[in-house]
Amino acid sequence: MLSKTQLKQLQSLHLKKQREAKKLFFAEGAKIILEIMEQKPDCILQIFATIDFIEKHHALLQEKKIQHFLITNDELKKISLQSTPNQALAICRFFEDTINDFDFSTNFSLYLDDVRDPGNLGTIIRVANWFGIQAIFCSPNTCDVYNPKVIQATMGAFLRVNIVYAELSNVVKTHQIKNIYGALLSGNNVYNQKLSPGLIVIGNEANGISDNHLHLITTPLKIPGHPTQLTESLNAAVAASIITAEFFRQLQNNKNTKH
Amino acid sequence: MLSKTQLKQLQSLHLKKQREAKKLFFAEGAKIILEIMEQKPDCILQIFATIDFIEKHHALLQEKKIQHFLITNDELKKISLQSTPNQALAICRFFEDTINDFDFSTNFSLYLDDVRDPGNLGTIIRVANWFGIQAIFCSPNTCDVYNPKVIQATMGAFLRVNIVYAELSNVVKTHQIKNIYGALLSGNNVYNQKLSPGLIVIGNEANGISDNHLHLITTPLKIPGHPTQLTESLNAAVAASIITAEFFRQLQNNKNTKH
Repeated sequence: MLSKTQLKQLQSLHLKKQREAKKLFFAEGAKIILEIMEQKPDCILQIFATIDFIEKHHALLQEKKIQHFLITNDELKKISLQSTPNQALAICRFFEDTINDFDFSTNFSLYLDDVRDPGNLGTIIRVANWFGIQAIFCSPNTCDVYNPKVIQATMGAFLRVNIVYAELSNVVKTHQIKNIYGALLSGNNVYNQKLSPGLIVIGNEANGISDNHLHLITTPLKIPGHPTQLTESLNAAVAASIITAEFFRQLQNNKNTKH
Repeated sequence: MLSKTQLKQLQSLHLKKQREAKKLFFAEGAKIILEIMEQKPDCILQIFATIDFIEKHHALLQEKKIQHFLITNDELKKISLQSTPNQALAICRFFEDTINDFDFSTNFSLYLDDVRDPGNLGTIIRVANWFGIQAIFCSPNTCDVYNPKVIQATMGAFLRVNIVYAELSNVVKTHQIKNIYGALLSGNNVYNQKLSPGLIVIGNEANGISDNHLHLITTPLKIPGHPTQLTESLNAAVAASIITAEFFRQLQNNKNTKH
């Protein structure tokens, strides 16, 4: 049974402020927790799970030496943020950034400029992982990666993509990035542009790329739409996905041509 | 002030069953309601709005002869599904489908096979509109287009894309569609495939394309990922977006080559 203190600690992690103070977050659902146990077992502090989960994964919990507590379905409902809670919940330590060696002369990455919607951030992390991007950079005001909704939307990809919060100018300077692309409605047609390794800046859902970052963009890019369309813009995660897919396609083609 | 009957009627439209019984739905937010007033004024039954909205758009409300009621911010909060309600809410009649003339020999469209997440459906409608697709087909179990979360996610695009619920086999037969593409992890690389006008089937978030539709697929397509990636799949809206973008690119190129 959960003590009042445990219940309070778990619920406190719904809030960004509390997560940052404690350097802890929580992940939900049997599937994602099994992935964390496999890929980053050391980051798990405690697991709270129903009898089904604990009986099924007893051996793994022992092998990885993970502290775990049996809770009831009613207790799970109390601490879960999901409409249909699924077996288990883990308190985890923040990951350590291991990003010093990102090589922008051969790879490309994304910079999220105040992307605020947790679903968008999670979806972009999932897409980045699909296309082999090992790190994503985010402005300090971009949504918190440890927001439970973000973790949910990544479908596990947050375990495999480093997320670094930093000012754009610092990222550009530290990594000596030459090509800085920006998703802009007034940009060049992404399909007519020879794309090279570098950084792709994706703007905020309502306001796009912030004015004080525009001067850093070396190549503005747009996704051409149908001439008759009245839709003003694409969703931020969709724009990021289509542009990332095109970068991946062109850079893979270049590699295949060279070999 | 809202009467109890009006309050009940508005809240009842949060439920699909009630929407279908009454053939009514509601839309929220000043921006979207102005778009409906411009593009489909006849479908508006009533508008409930705060003093700000009514004063600012008084002339338009008169011109379009739209019945409207003044409500307080507190009343708006009671009937809104949004965390920060925005000025106005409209009760609207279902749109009439005008889709008999969709020509699959020159155009392409999407078939959503049990896409269940409202955010995904809304995002796909927005993408479809961007690329000039005039109608989308959905399986009967796909999320309801009149779900307020769907309408929100389309950012107005639901006014410009017809949504037709029908069995895949009926759509194929009615429109005599020859090329039926399917987003499948075991498909052909979408970039190596010559894409032609036709229908693209996008599967359910968890289960993909349903087993009893697979035999209808003439060309399975996949989005190639990085060889090292461990992410099992892409989000349904992202997969739909990347494939739709590639169809648009290839078909536009073909048109430009012919002219």
